[in-house]
Amino acid sequence: MRVALLIEYRGTDFAGWQVQPNRNTVQGAIEEALRRVCGTPVALFASGRTDAGVHAVGQVAHFDTASTIPAAKFAAVLNRYLPPSVSIRASAEVDSAFHARKSALSKTYEYRIAVAPARQAMLWDLAAQTPYPVDSSKMREAAQTLIGTHDFASFRTAGSSAKTTVRTITELLVEAETSVVREGAVRIEITADGFLYNMVRVIAAQLLAVGQGRKTKEDMERILAARSRAAAKETAPACGLCLKRVRYPCDPFDGIR
Amino acid sequence: MRVALLIEYRGTDFAGWQVQPNRNTVQGAIEEALRRVCGTPVALFASGRTDAGVHAVGQVAHFDTASTIPAAKFAAVLNRYLPPSVSIRASAEVDSAFHARKSALSKTYEYRIAVAPARQAMLWDLAAQTPYPVDSSKMREAAQTLIGTHDFASFRTAGSSAKTTVRTITELLVEAETSVVREGAVRIEITADGFLYNMVRVIAAQLLAVGQGRKTKEDMERILAARSRAAAKETAPACGLCLKRVRYPCDPFDGIR
Repeated sequence: MRVALLIEYRGTDFAGWQVQPNRNTVQGAIEEALRRVCGTPVALFASGRTDAGVHAVGQVAHFDTASTIPAAKFAAVLNRYLPPSVSIRASAEVDSAFHARKSALSKTYEYRIAVAPARQAMLWDLAAQTPYPVDSSKMREAAQTLIGTHDFASFRTAGSSAKTTVRTITELLVEAETSVVREGAVRIEITADGFLYNMVRVIAAQLLAVGQGRKTKEDMERILAARSRAAAKETAPACGLCLKRVRYPCDPFDGIR
Repeated sequence: MRVALLIEYRGTDFAGWQVQPNRNTVQGAIEEALRRVCGTPVALFASGRTDAGVHAVGQVAHFDTASTIPAAKFAAVLNRYLPPSVSIRASAEVDSAFHARKSALSKTYEYRIAVAPARQAMLWDLAAQTPYPVDSSKMREAAQTLIGTHDFASFRTAGSSAKTTVRTITELLVEAETSVVREGAVRIEITADGFLYNMVRVIAAQLLAVGQGRKTKEDMERILAARSRAAAKETAPACGLCLKRVRYPCDPFDGIR
């Protein structure tokens, strides 16, 4: 049977999702747990990689197994073998045509920026931090520029192997929120049919520049039109990024927030 | 001059506040930064120790120095030499009679409990976790039992060297909140003139038992009256605890939340 997992991780402790020799990775930790549970090596396929330091509350991956463990029980069983910074929120049997990456319709990422005069130790790996005030309404206005189908060639960094740089952003929210600790924070939430390499982190850096008056909405329009990485420049740090949700035609985790 | 520091730290990476040989401690990290900034060894005195894994957003400590660095500048200067999981929120010159521990009028601690069916990896070191539903109104009702001046001998663990076990709890709040990630959480906030060893963690464990129907308000009354550690038993984990605030007669950080 084919089983899909809904996965949460604190990216801090990992050299990203993908297995690498002699590195602590999320895929490596879950494959090792699967090997112990199933008794044989198991290959895990995710919706996509995440970089070192990037978090997830809604990563999805699938694997095939001949195990007699009921699909829905895999979450609880695997959690016993996983380190504290990785957990399986749910598991479900899926059709053999389901593929965590190829079947994905859209993904939603969150990006968090904490705003406080001094560096906040409690948030050191959970949010980007800035001492300068941020006008989230300016960010929201500039964000409108990016919604829809565009060539996002300006909003990526080297490492993209994508054939086309056209993507469709269906939702881009900018919200002021109260952070875990005490001070103000800004949360950006982006949903698209797919993302170029570092696309969310480049967009977050540009929107932050607008919120702090270093760039304008018109600059965003120019950057988008330029279709060149040279137009955008900054990339926001990995620790602010979190993969929130992956959507599928027959969503195995539809009922879960 | 005497300088007071307002200190924030993620306790995860530390063997507690107090300096210990060959261990990574918060006091050790800040004393090392002070030594580099001042050019001589500097002794730091905190409002009290915190255990391994316990966090702080409002720890206070003082030191004496002949440095020509203005007291208010120490925060920014020290932050350059501190690891990401420790930060100085503010620094201020204080009277030579000020003592971070002896002058303290009261302390406020927070305790966080995350409630979700499966373990939440994003919160692994930031909150206690339970899969079972919690009734925060029952916890709030039982908490009333503890407010006021009582002998809290039942609410401590071995290691207390306190001469008296009488303390005054001036405020004890229980609030339902939305956690960082997504699910429900309960926040307990306790203010007292002083705390016995592990007092907040023992109280949190008892209140959680009431919130989950394993104990009643009447059990809390019996535990308090027993004046014996044997009556309470459980201690909630360190990762849920955060030192929020220390108050002083002439509070050097009065304007800061």
